[in-house]
This record gives sequence, structure tokens and C-alpha cells, in this order.
Amino acid sequence: MHKLTHYRLCPVSRSIRVMLAELEVKVEAVEETPWDLGLTFLQLNPAGELPVLEIDAGPVLCGSYAISEYIAEELKRHPVDGLSVPLFPGNREDRAEVRRLVDWFQGKLNREVTRELLHEKVYARLNPGNSGHTPDADILRAIRANLRYHMSYVGYLAHGRRWLAGEDMSFADIAASAHFSTIDYFDEIPWEEYPQTKDWYARIKSRPAFRPLLADRIPGTPPPRHYNDLDF
Amino acid sequence: MHKLTHYRLCPVSRSIRVMLAELEVKVEAVEETPWDLGLTFLQLNPAGELPVLEIDAGPVLCGSYAISEYIAEELKRHPVDGLSVPLFPGNREDRAEVRRLVDWFQGKLNREVTRELLHEKVYARLNPGNSGHTPDADILRAIRANLRYHMSYVGYLAHGRRWLAGEDMSFADIAASAHFSTIDYFDEIPWEEYPQTKDWYARIKSRPAFRPLLADRIPGTPPPRHYNDLDF
Repeated sequence: MHKLTHYRLCPVSRSIRVMLAELEVKVEAVEETPWDLGLTFLQLNPAGELPVLEIDAGPVLCGSYAISEYIAEELKRHPVDGLSVPLFPGNREDRAEVRRLVDWFQGKLNREVTRELLHEKVYARLNPGNSGHTPDADILRAIRANLRYHMSYVGYLAHGRRWLAGEDMSFADIAASAHFSTIDYFDEIPWEEYPQTKDWYARIKSRPAFRPLLADRIPGTPPPRHYNDLDF
Repeated sequence: MHKLTHYRLCPVSRSIRVMLAELEVKVEAVEETPWDLGLTFLQLNPAGELPVLEIDAGPVLCGSYAISEYIAEELKRHPVDGLSVPLFPGNREDRAEVRRLVDWFQGKLNREVTRELLHEKVYARLNPGNSGHTPDADILRAIRANLRYHMSYVGYLAHGRRWLAGEDMSFADIAASAHFSTIDYFDEIPWEEYPQTKDWYARIKSRPAFRPLLADRIPGTPPPRHYNDLDF
């Protein structure tokens, strides 16, 4: 069986978990704590980044880019009947749009919001070398201001299109919703102000592939009530 | 003709310039200053990031990921005789390795070294709202420490393989060398301590596709003498 090394609230890991669940690919999941990566993990991925997917009797795939494109190539060679989610659907131009948005969410949104939020709210607190950490109010303010811009942009996309990159659901939707799910765990999303973003997220959130994410918890920090409510 | 919007020292822009030159794709190049992007550019790429490639009578491609994969798909459909640089050569596993490394250089190396260095040495200084900026010594020290790790890692790859991702030159070599060229412009690379990294870089640097990068200059900050010396 393939083996996925992830951290439960890591948004990039989450995007791969949802992707694999959508494609009905079974994996053994192993957790690593990003603030204290073991030597064994660093030998697997010297970049020190999650997630890593070890293909059964195959290569070690490090990071969302290598994993998603590898799986997409595999699906092209061996299409699976009944699967409704091609990762990069459409023609070359459509795929370029999916990739632009994947880059946006895994890159820009992560850098400006999700990674910083996780650092302030989890990594710095759970790191034993750093006990007593309290989130920095100025950083949180900047994160919240950045988030509003991303919320509007997703709302704008969701208003004009059925899914974020076009008519079909794609890896762009998976990546975006994975990040929003992590941000929502900390009750940081003003959903009511962005009804179009909320409608789009509600559609993804109700998919069976999303359910495992909604069951995740971290010690000492419960999510808000609406976190796993499909009718939030 | 296609139109490439770039900034001369932006490492990601440079990777696309070298890629297009290797593939003998002619483009009209237009510069934007990353610290003062115009509204017209933001309409083109709301992410506010370089580079952007506008395909003649085709889509607008934003960012290295969308551009490189689009061009690779195009090359697969219409192979060009005599070109020695497939961007993602080999089998699926080989391509996953190229993509892992592209992610390393455009993501990790950029975040830990190139982007910060450019900010300290150029963007903060040339930004008129920020005149009198001098680089922060602590930040420069951190950048230099990070750089050594990347230099060793590239040396390790170059020692065991002909090119960074394997037997063939790939987009991973192009991305890595684009970043190193920007860092080298500021004379920040201790080449003599990393002979294997230097040998690999010398091979890329002497390719005709690399020459335009070596002719670039920014006002007030000349590169060191060895910057455009092929026998450095």
C-alpha cells in the first residue's frame, strides 16, 4: 500500500488527502509534526516539507507539485471508471488556469495566510523549545487582512464559474478548500461576508472525500462548532 | 509574437527566459518593476507575480508552473527537431524528480535566499517610498547561512548525477541556475567552497541561452567581474 506522510492541519497535506480520497486511492497515513521533523523524515524529503507520498514499489514523491502531476499522469494512462474528478481537466489552456490557481493557493495563500496562521496558532505553541508562546497580535491582524483579499478573489471566481478554474471541479478547488479548512479550524473565516465563497466551500465540504478532514482535532484547541457542520 | 512580462533580476522570470531561449521560442520582452506593479499588470495577473507569458492568439500564462507545464505539453504535441532540452525528461518517476527539484528551487530556495536577497538589495532600495534603505545585517547573515545549505545540496546532486535531476538537463537545472545567477549578481556565492556546484553552474552558464542574463545590469549596482566570465 502507498504511504502518505502528513500533518493533520497542514493545508498542503490536506489537499493531497482529499485528492487521494476523491480518486479512491487507499493509503497508509503516517503523521509527522512539522516543528520537529525526525531524521528519518529528512532522509525521505531533504526539503523538510510535507506531504510525502511513497508509492508502493515505486518512487517517493515529495510535495504537492510532484504528487499531483504524477497521479494525474497515472490517471491518464489508466483512467478509472466513474471518477468525476480529473485533477487537471479540459484542454491545455484550461489546465494552465488550474495550475495558475493551484500555485495561487499552495503558494500565495499559504505564504500570506495559512502557513503564518499555523505557525502562530500551533507550531510555535506545540514546539517544546518554545513553550508559553502566544500569537502575535500584529501578525494575526496582517493575516486577517490578507485573508479578506483571498476570500474576495475566490468569491469572484466562484461567481463567474461553476468551479474555481472553470466548469469542472479540479485540483484548484481541492487545494483552495484544503487551505480554507485549516483556516476555518481556527474560526478565522468571516463566512457571512463572502456568500459566494461560502456556497462554493459548502459544496466541497459536503463531499465524502472531505469528511476525514472535518474529524481531525488537535489537543487543546478544539475547532468552532460550525467546523464540521455541513450546513454551516 | 508571444509577450513575456518579467523583471531582469527576478529569478523565476529568468528561469522562463532561459527556458524559452533553450527552446528557441521568440518573445517580446517587457519589464515590470516588482516593487511597483501597475494596474494593467495586476489585471493581467491578479496574484501580482512575475513572470507572465501572453501566448500569441492564446491564453495568458501566469507563473512558472503554468508556463513551464503549458510549454512542455506543447512540445509533446509538436516536438521540435534538434532541441536538446526536454523540460521534464524521462519516465513518470524521472519527471516527479524534476518537479520535486523545480519546487525546491522556485519555492524553498526562493523563500530562504533569492527573494529575501532581492528584497534587501534591490526592491527595498529602489522603491521610492523607501529611500535610504540599507540591507539588514541580520537578515543578510541568515540568507548567507541558508545559501550554504542549498549550495551543498546542489553539489551533492551534481556529484551523483550528470544533471541535477538525472542524466538529462531539465527544467530543474534551468530553475536552479536562474536563482544562482541572481544571487551571483550580488557576489554572494562562495563558489570556491563548492567545486561541484561550480562545475555544474559553469556548464549551464556557457550555454547560449544563458547569455542574455549575463548582460543584464541594474543602475547603481554593477555585478562582480566574474558574473559574466564563463571561465570564472
